[in-house]
Amino acid sequence: MNSTAISDREYIEDICRRSRNVSRLGMTLSSTLKNKALLRIADLLAENEEEILAANRIDVEKAHEHGIGEVMADRLTINSKRLAGISDGIRQVAALKDPVGEILWGTKRPNGLEIIKKRVPLGVIGIIYESRPNVTCDCAALSLKSGNAAILRGGSEAVNTNRALVKVIRRGLADAGIPEDFVILIERTDRSLVNLFMTMNDYVDILIPRGGKGLISNVVENSRIPVIRTGTGNCHTYIDDGFDPQMALDIVINAKTQRPSVCNAMETLLVSEKAAVSFLPVIADALIERGVELRGCEKTVALCGSKIVPASELDYETEYNDLILAVKVVSDVNEAIEHVNKYGSGHSEAIITRSYENAKLFQDKVDAACVYANCSTRFTDGFEFGFGAEIGISNQKLHARGPMGLEELTSVKYIINGDGQIRT
Amino acid sequence: MNSTAISDREYIEDICRRSRNVSRLGMTLSSTLKNKALLRIADLLAENEEEILAANRIDVEKAHEHGIGEVMADRLTINSKRLAGISDGIRQVAALKDPVGEILWGTKRPNGLEIIKKRVPLGVIGIIYESRPNVTCDCAALSLKSGNAAILRGGSEAVNTNRALVKVIRRGLADAGIPEDFVILIERTDRSLVNLFMTMNDYVDILIPRGGKGLISNVVENSRIPVIRTGTGNCHTYIDDGFDPQMALDIVINAKTQRPSVCNAMETLLVSEKAAVSFLPVIADALIERGVELRGCEKTVALCGSKIVPASELDYETEYNDLILAVKVVSDVNEAIEHVNKYGSGHSEAIITRSYENAKLFQDKVDAACVYANCSTRFTDGFEFGFGAEIGISNQKLHARGPMGLEELTSVKYIINGDGQIRT
Repeated sequence: MNSTAISDREYIEDICRRSRNVSRLGMTLSSTLKNKALLRIADLLAENEEEILAANRIDVEKAHEHGIGEVMADRLTINSKRLAGISDGIRQVAALKDPVGEILWGTKRPNGLEIIKKRVPLGVIGIIYESRPNVTCDCAALSLKSGNAAILRGGSEAVNTNRALVKVIRRGLADAGIPEDFVILIERTDRSLVNLFMTMNDYVDILIPRGGKGLISNVVENSRIPVIRTGTGNCHTYIDDGFDPQMALDIVINAKTQRPSVCNAMETLLVSEKAAVSFLPVIADALIERGVELRGCEKTVALCGSKIVPASELDYETEYNDLILAVKVVSDVNEAIEHVNKYGSGHSEAIITRSYENAKLFQDKVDAACVYANCSTRFTDGFEFGFGAEIGISNQKLHARGPMGLEELTSVKYIINGDGQIRT
Repeated sequence: MNSTAISDREYIEDICRRSRNVSRLGMTLSSTLKNKALLRIADLLAENEEEILAANRIDVEKAHEHGIGEVMADRLTINSKRLAGISDGIRQVAALKDPVGEILWGTKRPNGLEIIKKRVPLGVIGIIYESRPNVTCDCAALSLKSGNAAILRGGSEAVNTNRALVKVIRRGLADAGIPEDFVILIERTDRSLVNLFMTMNDYVDILIPRGGKGLISNVVENSRIPVIRTGTGNCHTYIDDGFDPQMALDIVINAKTQRPSVCNAMETLLVSEKAAVSFLPVIADALIERGVELRGCEKTVALCGSKIVPASELDYETEYNDLILAVKVVSDVNEAIEHVNKYGSGHSEAIITRSYENAKLFQDKVDAACVYANCSTRFTDGFEFGFGAEIGISNQKLHARGPMGLEELTSVKYIINGDGQIRT
C-alpha cells in the first residue's frame, strides 16, 4: 500500500483490519512461541542500540527546538542504560505466567452439558500515549504475552524513536514466526487521526489511553471503542484520632514527596480535629521544609499560621501532580469518608489509625480501587502488587480496577460440550 | 422537586445524583437486608395486582390505538399468571448467593503489606430497555442483590405499567429500611432524554441497553458511560464431515425453530461438502416443513432445488430473528471457522461432529462468547448455565462476555493493610 496516496481513513482502516486479522491467531499462540519472540525482541533492542539512539536524538533535538522543558526532554530521552532497562523489562514479561487458556470455572449441568470458562485474549488492543518511548515496548510486550494484537499511537514528539523501536519489535516477531502485524505503529502524527482511530470499534476491542488529562478525557468522550480510563488520581491520606506520630509523618512525607508527579501521590491530607491540634503544625513544618506548598482550610490556617495558603473548593478537586498539598481538618472518620467519596477520583486512599473499627469503616465505605490502612498510597502499582507487570492503573469500575497486569488484558470464552442436547 | 417546572437536564441530573448518593450504601448492605427487601417486593407485587394490571391495561389499550402488532402487544401484557411469575423470579434472586464481599485473591508482599481483592458493587447501573415490563422487576432485583443502585429507562409504551411496578418496588425497599432511591424510574418518555442520560458518566458506572438493534447501536455510538453491548446474535451451526444424522437434525431444528426471535437462535447453517450431499436435502425438507424459508449458496440450490432462495452476501450478515435460515456449503472445518469469524457477532456458535480434532479446532479458533460442540446454540442463557439469573447476554469482550449473572454486576476493590510501609 502506498502510504502517501491514501486518505487518513483508509490508512487507519487498513491498520485496524490487518491487526484484527492476525489477532485471531492470538487465541492459539503457544507460550513457548510468545516467549521466544519476547526474548528475541529484547536481544534485538540491544543489537540495534545505535540506530534507536540515533532516532531518539532526532526527536529530542526537535523537541528542544520547540522549546520543550527539561523534565519533558528527560522523559523523551533514551540512553544506553535506559534501553538496557527496557530489554530487561521485556525479559521479565517473558518469565511471567501466561494467562491465556486458564480455566476459570466449570460445571456439569443436570442435562449433561459440560461448561467451562476459559481465559482468552481480548483481541485487538489500541493504546494511545504520550512522550515516554518505553511505553511502546512495555505495551507491545504485555499485549503479545497476553495473546493480543496491539495498535500503538504514541506522541508525535517521539515518532522517530517509536518507529525505530517498532521496527525492531516487528523483526523479533517475524524471527520467531509470529506475523509482524501483531504490533503496528500508527506513524502518521496528525491529531485528527486519533479521533478517526477511536471510531474503529468494528476492529478494535479495547482502547487504553495513557497520558495527561486532556488526552484521557478526549478518549473517554469520543471513543466508540470500549475504553479503560487510567491514571487520574486525586488521592487522600486521613489521619485519625489515635495514630502513631512517627508512622504518620513518614507516610505523609512519602505519599506527597517521594514522586509528586505520579497518579498515586497524595493530593489532600485530611486530619481529624483531635489529631490536628498537636500534629498538624509538626507535619506542616516537615512538609514545608521539603518544599511543599500547603493550602489549608480555615482551621489549618488557624493552627499553623500564615505559612498556609487558604484553600478554595477548587484545591480539593485538583490533582496537582506537584509539590502542593491541600489540607483539611475534619471532625472524624465519617467526615473523612464523605470528603474522599465527594472529591476523590476512586484511585488510592489511605487512613492512618490505631483503631480497628475506623480502619474497617474507612476501607468498607471509601469507594476507590485501592484503600490502604497505615501505609503510603504510593504502593498502587502492578509491580508493588506482585503482578510482575503493569499496563496502567484503572480508576473505572468496569472490566479492570486498580493496577492492570496481564490478566486484565484478557477476556473469557465459554466452551460447551454436549452429546445432542436441545432446549425444550 | 416540581417535575413539570424543571428542564430535562435538571430532571435527569437530579435522578442520577440521587442514585449516586444512595449507591454508596450498596457496598455495606447486608445480604439479610437485601433479601428482606426482595421478599417484601415479591409479596407487594401480589398484593397490588389490581393496580398493576389496571395500569398495564392502559398501556396495552394505547398500544392497540397506535396499531401495535399482536406479538408486541403480547410482550407488553401482564396478566395475573405473569405477575406471579415475576414475583417468583424475585424470590429466586433472594435465594441466590450474594456476590458482594467475596474475597477473590490475596497476597502478603515481601515488605509485609497484606493485599486482598474483594468483590464490590459497580455502583449505579443504568438500564435502557423496550417493551417487556418484566425487565423492570428483573433488573431491579438483580441490581439490588448485587448492591447496585438502578436507574431504569423503559419504553414509552410501557410507562404506566413501569410506574406502577416501580412504585411497589420502592415501597418494598422502604419497608425493609433501604432508601427507595436504590431503584428510580425515568418517567419522562421523550427520546431526547435517553441521549441526555448517556452523558451522565460522572454519576452512572455502567449502561446496559436491552432491546433491538437501533436502541443498542444508538447507545454504543453515543454513550459516554461505559456500555455493555448485549443481545446481537448472528449464530451459526456447522455440520462437519462425520456426524450423527439424527443428532444433527434435532439440533438444527431446535436451534432454528424452537424460538426464532431470540439472540441465541441459529441464523446460518454451514455444512461441509461431504455432509451436504446426503444430509442437506433431508434437513432442508425438515426445516421447510416447519415453515422455515431457506436462503442458500449455489451448491445448496444445486443439491436441494428451487425450494431454496439464492442467498446474497447480505443474508450471511443478517440476524433474521425469524423463520428464515441462510445455508452455505463449505469445504471443511477451516472454511467454517473462517466464515463464522467473518460474519458472526461473537455470540454463540456450534459444531456438530464426531471428530475430536475438529471439535477442538472449532472451539479454539472461533472467536465467540460461547462455542458449542454437539448441542444447540439455544443454551446460551444465564439460567441454563446455572447462574440462577440473567441480566443480558454480552457479546463484547470487555468486563463481561456471554450470559451475565450477579457476578457480572460487580467490580473489585483492593484492601491493603500495613504497619507503616512507605515506598522507597
